[in-house]
Amino acid sequence: MSMQWLETPAQPIDQAMLAAALARQGQLTKPPGSLGCLEEIAVRLAAMQGTQQPSLERVRITVFAADHGIADEGVSAFPQAVTGQMIANFAHGGAAISVLARNLGASLEVVDVGSKADSAAMLGVIVNKAGEGTANFRRQPAMSENQLAAALQVGRDAVIQALKDDAQLFIGGEMGIANTSAATAVACALLERSAHDIAGPGTGLDATGVSRKAQIIDDALALHRPALTSPLEILRHVGGFEIAALCGAYIASAQAGLPVLVDGFIASSAALLALRIRPDVADWLFFGHASAEPGYVHLMQALDARPLVNLDMRLGEGSGAAVALPILRLAAALHGQMATFAEAGVSAKRA
Amino acid sequence: MSMQWLETPAQPIDQAMLAAALARQGQLTKPPGSLGCLEEIAVRLAAMQGTQQPSLERVRITVFAADHGIADEGVSAFPQAVTGQMIANFAHGGAAISVLARNLGASLEVVDVGSKADSAAMLGVIVNKAGEGTANFRRQPAMSENQLAAALQVGRDAVIQALKDDAQLFIGGEMGIANTSAATAVACALLERSAHDIAGPGTGLDATGVSRKAQIIDDALALHRPALTSPLEILRHVGGFEIAALCGAYIASAQAGLPVLVDGFIASSAALLALRIRPDVADWLFFGHASAEPGYVHLMQALDARPLVNLDMRLGEGSGAAVALPILRLAAALHGQMATFAEAGVSAKRA
Repeated sequence: MSMQWLETPAQPIDQAMLAAALARQGQLTKPPGSLGCLEEIAVRLAAMQGTQQPSLERVRITVFAADHGIADEGVSAFPQAVTGQMIANFAHGGAAISVLARNLGASLEVVDVGSKADSAAMLGVIVNKAGEGTANFRRQPAMSENQLAAALQVGRDAVIQALKDDAQLFIGGEMGIANTSAATAVACALLERSAHDIAGPGTGLDATGVSRKAQIIDDALALHRPALTSPLEILRHVGGFEIAALCGAYIASAQAGLPVLVDGFIASSAALLALRIRPDVADWLFFGHASAEPGYVHLMQALDARPLVNLDMRLGEGSGAAVALPILRLAAALHGQMATFAEAGVSAKRA
Repeated sequence: MSMQWLETPAQPIDQAMLAAALARQGQLTKPPGSLGCLEEIAVRLAAMQGTQQPSLERVRITVFAADHGIADEGVSAFPQAVTGQMIANFAHGGAAISVLARNLGASLEVVDVGSKADSAAMLGVIVNKAGEGTANFRRQPAMSENQLAAALQVGRDAVIQALKDDAQLFIGGEMGIANTSAATAVACALLERSAHDIAGPGTGLDATGVSRKAQIIDDALALHRPALTSPLEILRHVGGFEIAALCGAYIASAQAGLPVLVDGFIASSAALLALRIRPDVADWLFFGHASAEPGYVHLMQALDARPLVNLDMRLGEGSGAAVALPILRLAAALHGQMATFAEAGVSAKRA
């Protein structure tokens, strides 16, 4: 399977509209700058969509689920069977992201990109497996080159489908027992830091568990060090199928000119991978929710990004991005629908 | 006009439902605590509404507008005429809060509680004036006892109307050139701090302007000091009509068992007034958006509260609370609609 599509550049954003949108913000009936981050969001959305009436009515949320060989090392608070059980829960509408998507009027797709579960038997799950879980990267590379290419393509396929369905924003979620460990290993390799700086409790480890997990990840990184020569090789050796799918989805979104709202720690590690592969992806990304994982701050620094909200969530599934979605929507509405000083006959600030 | 209604206690929240809602959060298909603040919000809403399916479909946003004699001291970056111009803009649907209310499906009421404008001629404005602007509190008390009672009652009336309209949440907004100065004076008196610790740029003063404003407020506080013997006397001497209306609205909401989402700095100074008058109001308040005004942190400390978002907004009008509203709604939806571990057949965390 080819990965040549990764070489296609991202769409450029509309620079003329960027300038026009900035000018419009200065004319709306409010003190200059008083809408804070909402102004920057609106200006960026206007430039991405090429219109002074940006809109995010049609949102696609795709949750990528996969299993991880590293779970054998006991790095998660939950048993591996939960991955498959949660895939079923997403599809049945009972998971957090299912409830959020429904209440936000967003369409939800659940993609099994490589779990060990028999998800073909589950109604409403798109089965597009790159493998039956990754290999245990404490002992061997997480995936083969073919598996890596397949998992990246699964993300791209999800974006192609979102575009067919006329989506105006893409949110990627993830689920996979032990995937915080894979994301941590990816972040450590990209940021050249020890896992003791980056690892956190994931969905619920105690301090001893975190320290043990960090050591396992550092050992794995030492094992693979000579092979970690590129972002793609990092992803292949210590990543996961859903992390690769997210990375592929972010790149494909930017190539197609589809704005993206990135979720928390795991999604952000995929976003940094995407940027290291194609720096021009950056223009198309918003970041939804801050993560409490210690590595998150370092990821944001490397991404030169700031998340919209911090509500102490640590669930994944795309839930943090989903909770932040209304902020993007309201920023777009304010930009397109507020009156200007001239329209409303309101006096501007005195000189 | 009587203020005796202030003595009625707040409704108690449903303690049995609080415990039941906490228990339900532990059974939903997510790692315990992984929804962060959304869990606490949902549990509180369940206890306020007495149901495991809390809902905030019907939201009332009331913007109280008024003028301030202290504007004569040159404490604002905008001319006083803007108060009346913005009242018209709210009513015409062109202001930020108008756009937000429309997009959130919330009903918006605009109440002139004491501007100098001829708002009776403006379609869609509720005119309920406690005066034609406050007096300049640098020289004399901002309002008379009758005016104070009237302005508090305007807030209560707005809540009575919201309840008639079956509202499930109350958001109060404010507009009034120079009202950051009044709110700062109130906060200084309540917190026993100098205005040099509390004052900020409001809608756009530079550093010299802020320092001048702080000195004017400190001078005014020195002038009134002997009279500032109670929260109501502080409000009367250095507050504003819209601040009094917000204070009255918060107390009336708590008395009626109507949850409240408080906006930024000015609204929070009104909330602290409300709590100093009736500490049992606290159970009914959520806080929407952090303010960049230096005094905000001190207000939150005194209120023992934490705002939901910080998007660097500094507009007022209720806009910060409005932007945070979807978070409350999503928290309620997750609580009522997620599957439990038992319902979904998902394994809980291992021991």
